[in-house]
Amino acid sequence: MDRDRILLTPGPLTTTLRTKLAMLKDWGSWDSDFNAVTAQLRQRLLDIVNGQATHTVVPLQGSGTFSVEAAVATIVPRDGHVLVLDNGAYCKRAAKLTQLMGRRLTVLPFGEQEPVSPAALDDKLQADTSITHVILIHCETGTGVLNPLAEVAAVCEHRGKGLIVDAMSSFGALPIDARAIRFDALIAASGKCLEGVPGMGFVILRKAVLEGCAGNSQSLAMDLFDQHQYMEKTGQWRFTPPTHVVVALAESVQQFIEEGGQPARLARYTDNCRTLIEGMRGLGFEPYLEPGVQAPIIVTFHAPAHPAYDFKRFYAATKARGFVLYPGKLTQIETFRVGCIGAIGRHEIQQAVNAVADALKELGISHHDHSTN
Amino acid sequence: MDRDRILLTPGPLTTTLRTKLAMLKDWGSWDSDFNAVTAQLRQRLLDIVNGQATHTVVPLQGSGTFSVEAAVATIVPRDGHVLVLDNGAYCKRAAKLTQLMGRRLTVLPFGEQEPVSPAALDDKLQADTSITHVILIHCETGTGVLNPLAEVAAVCEHRGKGLIVDAMSSFGALPIDARAIRFDALIAASGKCLEGVPGMGFVILRKAVLEGCAGNSQSLAMDLFDQHQYMEKTGQWRFTPPTHVVVALAESVQQFIEEGGQPARLARYTDNCRTLIEGMRGLGFEPYLEPGVQAPIIVTFHAPAHPAYDFKRFYAATKARGFVLYPGKLTQIETFRVGCIGAIGRHEIQQAVNAVADALKELGISHHDHSTN
Repeated sequence: MDRDRILLTPGPLTTTLRTKLAMLKDWGSWDSDFNAVTAQLRQRLLDIVNGQATHTVVPLQGSGTFSVEAAVATIVPRDGHVLVLDNGAYCKRAAKLTQLMGRRLTVLPFGEQEPVSPAALDDKLQADTSITHVILIHCETGTGVLNPLAEVAAVCEHRGKGLIVDAMSSFGALPIDARAIRFDALIAASGKCLEGVPGMGFVILRKAVLEGCAGNSQSLAMDLFDQHQYMEKTGQWRFTPPTHVVVALAESVQQFIEEGGQPARLARYTDNCRTLIEGMRGLGFEPYLEPGVQAPIIVTFHAPAHPAYDFKRFYAATKARGFVLYPGKLTQIETFRVGCIGAIGRHEIQQAVNAVADALKELGISHHDHSTN
Repeated sequence: MDRDRILLTPGPLTTTLRTKLAMLKDWGSWDSDFNAVTAQLRQRLLDIVNGQATHTVVPLQGSGTFSVEAAVATIVPRDGHVLVLDNGAYCKRAAKLTQLMGRRLTVLPFGEQEPVSPAALDDKLQADTSITHVILIHCETGTGVLNPLAEVAAVCEHRGKGLIVDAMSSFGALPIDARAIRFDALIAASGKCLEGVPGMGFVILRKAVLEGCAGNSQSLAMDLFDQHQYMEKTGQWRFTPPTHVVVALAESVQQFIEEGGQPARLARYTDNCRTLIEGMRGLGFEPYLEPGVQAPIIVTFHAPAHPAYDFKRFYAATKARGFVLYPGKLTQIETFRVGCIGAIGRHEIQQAVNAVADALKELGISHHDHSTN
């Protein structure tokens, strides 16, 4: 039957009907009613990180990557030097866009199974004082590993370097406090842990830094300084906003607040993650990461070491049962990923585990003979 | 009462309920079902300009301006030289983004009330042979003036220059035939005459040109060469697509086909435009443009020359009656604009004219004493 499926993907993800129903209205992008939606949304996003005194929020059209590129282009001067802490696919993407726009780039590589090392960062910053900015991916969605934001921020502050944080898949779920952690820019998007629909990102910018960023960006569309200035002056987006995506995010943030904010969301996702890992372990699956570095956002599992296993067939068999999995993003070993985020709870996760069990049976993989150890 | 209002704005505009209802489902961006939506949409967009033999369609996240910037960044080599035919605000925006990304820029200025001149373009291209590309705005939304696309394309072809067309507010309504008109890139967006919701643009690229465009773009997010290559290989968008916006556009294009395609849409908008101008003339309003250069997309009217007139009050009074107008974009004289596009017909336009009449009464402007002549 063609029922709606549960998305176990790290964005787009499953949203509530209430969030989607907010899109059943057309809004004039110049109108004061829409400006009020934008203004309240910006304030609420800032509240999530306690950033009212120090930071400002600039929303941007496009996917999260557009906001990452915009943050780098706006914050880093043309003669700046960016260090990317690299332990996964999204780190490599940040490095690539930095290099393409012509900023000087250095990459500090780490293993994909471990968090980046604040001590190694400190050594690097001491060794190369020409570095002006550091880019950290808070939760690396390529594997699901959680990076030590507070410790990295402390090193950057101590060494007087700017910090740009890609918090795409952590914002709203993991605690981030701008009063305790110093960052110049922190980026997230609508269709992640805030459980909106995809189509816009936003950047939380430190006001003291933003003032000096005029003229840094070589892109008109992605110039956050301009976007911010225009929005402060007029209340409007500089170019046509994705109005329906914006109101859906405003509605999903309202539900986020009603649920109990970040602590409640973290509790639900942590419960989802625990239910998932326990259930999958029961079927013989092993998580790729050690428990201590696993963020409760997305879990990478080793694929079954069984000749009958084929990801496309496995995916189709679980999809037929109503659950959409996500492919792995590792090049060396075969894995797949399962998201813990979205408008779902432990019952949906348990049903997903049941569906995976049924899918394995369909593929002729019995539950004891596919251990990857 | 808080009823939904009719948007007389050039995007976002009024969409059908059927289009909005398509957004009540979450789609996995990696899933084959969503890939099928993208593939069919790309084919149908290409069909609208008869481009199957020569062109390809690359969709892009963000507003239309993102796609304009992406087209220039992808098509124009870093040492290229761009000539912008300037008769309005969107021409100036195209010039600005070209200059910001570091491409050499020349602007050929025209009056805002008249179309650009193909003869003047020919003279310019003869005088400065270093120009490699020409940018034309098909319908300049700043005023509503229609520019001579076919004649400009003929000059560019004759002189061997690349042509980039911003067809944002004309695509789907005005005829554009890739078999008769040579262009390298033609840009439009979801929330205009195709009557989708805003949040994505698309660029129709000439295949013979695209092949040589690897490495032109300094932006990762806006590199249409990369986006095209990835999409051809995988069927997927390179970065998270605005899934709900995409399915809404697919649904609105289905309705576009059912209505009778571009000729039917042009007939409806032409009827809307005629009804609007006749009705507003009856109230004493004069259009800013001569009838011969007025596109049936958006009409600029002179503001009443009456001391009681104030745009904000006029806007509020028509909004209270259910119709959202659009401010003028001219700096020298006071105007306002009224869109003829969106899921509306002559009855909605006539009701809008009636609402304007009632709003004038509320403002104390009787219908004979505000002529602008």
